[in-house]
Amino acid sequence: MVEMMDITSQQLSELIELRQVRNLRTIFDEYNLIDLAEIVEQLQLKEILFLFKTLKKDITAQIFTYLTYEKKQEIIQSFTSVEIMAMLDNLYTDDIVDFLEEMPANIVKQVLNSASAEQRADINLLLSYPEYSAGSIMSTDFVELEATDTVARAIRKIKQQGKTAETISVSYVISQNRELVGTVRLRDILLAETEDTIEDLMDVDVISVKTHDDQESVAHVIKRYDITVVPVVNDENRLIGIITVDDIIDILEDEVTEDIQKMAAIMPIEGSYLKTSVKEMTKSRITWLLVLMVSATFTGTIISGYEDALLLIPALAASIPLIMSTAGNAGSQASAMVIRGIAVGELSVSDYLKVIFKEVQVAILSGLVLFAINWLRLMIFTPETSMTVDLVISLTLMLTVVISKLVGGVLPLLAMFFKQDPAAMAAPLITTMVDAVALMIYFNLAVSMLGL
Amino acid sequence: MVEMMDITSQQLSELIELRQVRNLRTIFDEYNLIDLAEIVEQLQLKEILFLFKTLKKDITAQIFTYLTYEKKQEIIQSFTSVEIMAMLDNLYTDDIVDFLEEMPANIVKQVLNSASAEQRADINLLLSYPEYSAGSIMSTDFVELEATDTVARAIRKIKQQGKTAETISVSYVISQNRELVGTVRLRDILLAETEDTIEDLMDVDVISVKTHDDQESVAHVIKRYDITVVPVVNDENRLIGIITVDDIIDILEDEVTEDIQKMAAIMPIEGSYLKTSVKEMTKSRITWLLVLMVSATFTGTIISGYEDALLLIPALAASIPLIMSTAGNAGSQASAMVIRGIAVGELSVSDYLKVIFKEVQVAILSGLVLFAINWLRLMIFTPETSMTVDLVISLTLMLTVVISKLVGGVLPLLAMFFKQDPAAMAAPLITTMVDAVALMIYFNLAVSMLGL
Repeated sequence: MVEMMDITSQQLSELIELRQVRNLRTIFDEYNLIDLAEIVEQLQLKEILFLFKTLKKDITAQIFTYLTYEKKQEIIQSFTSVEIMAMLDNLYTDDIVDFLEEMPANIVKQVLNSASAEQRADINLLLSYPEYSAGSIMSTDFVELEATDTVARAIRKIKQQGKTAETISVSYVISQNRELVGTVRLRDILLAETEDTIEDLMDVDVISVKTHDDQESVAHVIKRYDITVVPVVNDENRLIGIITVDDIIDILEDEVTEDIQKMAAIMPIEGSYLKTSVKEMTKSRITWLLVLMVSATFTGTIISGYEDALLLIPALAASIPLIMSTAGNAGSQASAMVIRGIAVGELSVSDYLKVIFKEVQVAILSGLVLFAINWLRLMIFTPETSMTVDLVISLTLMLTVVISKLVGGVLPLLAMFFKQDPAAMAAPLITTMVDAVALMIYFNLAVSMLGL
Repeated sequence: MVEMMDITSQQLSELIELRQVRNLRTIFDEYNLIDLAEIVEQLQLKEILFLFKTLKKDITAQIFTYLTYEKKQEIIQSFTSVEIMAMLDNLYTDDIVDFLEEMPANIVKQVLNSASAEQRADINLLLSYPEYSAGSIMSTDFVELEATDTVARAIRKIKQQGKTAETISVSYVISQNRELVGTVRLRDILLAETEDTIEDLMDVDVISVKTHDDQESVAHVIKRYDITVVPVVNDENRLIGIITVDDIIDILEDEVTEDIQKMAAIMPIEGSYLKTSVKEMTKSRITWLLVLMVSATFTGTIISGYEDALLLIPALAASIPLIMSTAGNAGSQASAMVIRGIAVGELSVSDYLKVIFKEVQVAILSGLVLFAINWLRLMIFTPETSMTVDLVISLTLMLTVVISKLVGGVLPLLAMFFKQDPAAMAAPLITTMVDAVALMIYFNLAVSMLGL
């Protein structure tokens, strides 16, 4: 694995205290800035400010992007507008926008006032797109070429524009009116003859996304086509920006976190575990607990309805937990598989017959196994109950598994059919539904088979 | 979004039928090969073979990598060794290995026999690493430079080695005895003066992984350092291969799928939903259902132990579902948050105090809300039960939430402390534990408060 940093925040503090500028510069040149940022985060504000005034601007700009929002805010507040301007010069526009989106209005104003006119225009453009859209996450720093450029000219342009571009692996070929007409890989330019033109080298089958596309669909395009960067165009196919794969990994992770939260009956929250307030966390969890309370009332009513049966054969009550938890688990097993299948793009609504067919088979097989083992278990461990009671419990278990797996497998697809989020068909909802059905099967079987 | 392909497999079939070679070549030049591969997948084998013999080898090689394993197997089986050799020439070694890992022995032998001696050595090297290790997923096609190379010489080397390299954005600088001493970005080489040497330009703070590192930790390194490619070295720090970010996205997704399966009480299975057999799927699900059957017996015993209480106040039975499902859901809410926090690297064992503190606060707040609303609900909708019974149920609910959230929050951290997988502390296990505790609280409160 990666060798761990052998520098501590204590050591850094000491070097700052002693004003060891040259040593500090060497450290920040040699060690990885992401590791260093974690250490800088722990320093006091005045120490950080000393560092920021001492180190090269491109290094401090990088460190800045890796710090927490709280630290960034403190730093910007202690900067003069000249210092802010120097910092902005070394940041990619999308990083600035990222940061501004979480800052209070006074900081945003302070930063915008310090930005150059050109930067301000770029920032405002990005800020104008709706949250979670391709436009809001794209970068406006890319290399653009024309189809008529020769290889020699293209290389000159790449050298020039490449200083600030997020990537130079791919350049974008635009027409006179700024329409995106092709992409060309640096690799192909380097391997070509100097007199070749970009037109000969460019790929005209361009995969692009629109500014208003959802960031999730951008992530899926990048994943599907295995590309490291995707261009963003407006409705007139004019090139506006690019989105790189590293931003996409974060988006894919957030999406998964959201799915897992939904599956665990939590209203999605955005922040991280440690940074989300108790109030916010309670809010995101209490809703489902209340909904489930209401639905559990319904399940309770079923039990109340069969009070007489319970009074006659008290042993029936002892199996309620088994039947309820088997129903819940069998259902969430099926729904988790289907929800994930949909998320990775492997299952679609049209597969519903295949899902039903598979779940029924798995359910019957699982049901038979559970039936047999449970009957054996009851015969051995509770010899005092009648054979018929054992049969009622075991039969219920089998039927419960079949119904739970069917409901769990089909509900997410149904949600998708109605353009709802499959993950919102969360385990707890399915659990409550199948709990009720399972208890009804249980008591109906008991009443009819035991003649109650 | 991406414009959809307007070509169907029917049209492709017709062009093949009519031997329209030129049209076919144009289509495969112009359209995206990933989209085309999906259409090729639906063609008949003899049609595919005609395509493979007609199109350019680098295009068929790409199409080949995008096909399903079943199709790949069929194709290789119908190829002569000369044809296989031509195909291998155009494939990256890691793609060949990927494919061989899933193939039966006879196909592996056929492919290895057709490979060139050099390729065979590379393939065998990759195949020799344990599954899921960095060595097994790396590519051996990269650009290597020496520190003493001038920029001009480096560019010549890149042009030469770059034809077969997976990436040329980064080149690797190795010493006389093949130790990895630095990395240099193509961008920096292009922007430098021709007389500069690689030593001046290279970054000596190299982030690398070891051949035997787990693929998951490779994914985390790439994510943490926001890099698109990471070098793989052996224990002597000799450069062996590289791993690119696109492979990592797939690994991260597989890992999430595994976590979700574990959280839903499914023993992880590797294949996709539709391709996993009924038997395999049943096997992966039945284990937990059986474990839960045994533990539900325990919960059942608790209820049996309080049969007398249930006979005296039958209304107590009606609330069992509410208490059990609240316990289960509150517990899995907490565990899902903590498991995900660990997975994205945001929570570690040392945060246990923070987690306990937060969960207790959230639990008390949620518990109070549930207590109040439930009491109101019972007073309004079941006026026939006594105030004390209502109080017992509501109090149980509150205590249940507190305990469930604590157990759900702490168990995953405990698992991590004992170097176990936190996701294996799955919802169902936590559910059964808290179910039992909740029922014990319930009946104990009932017995003491109602004087049963």
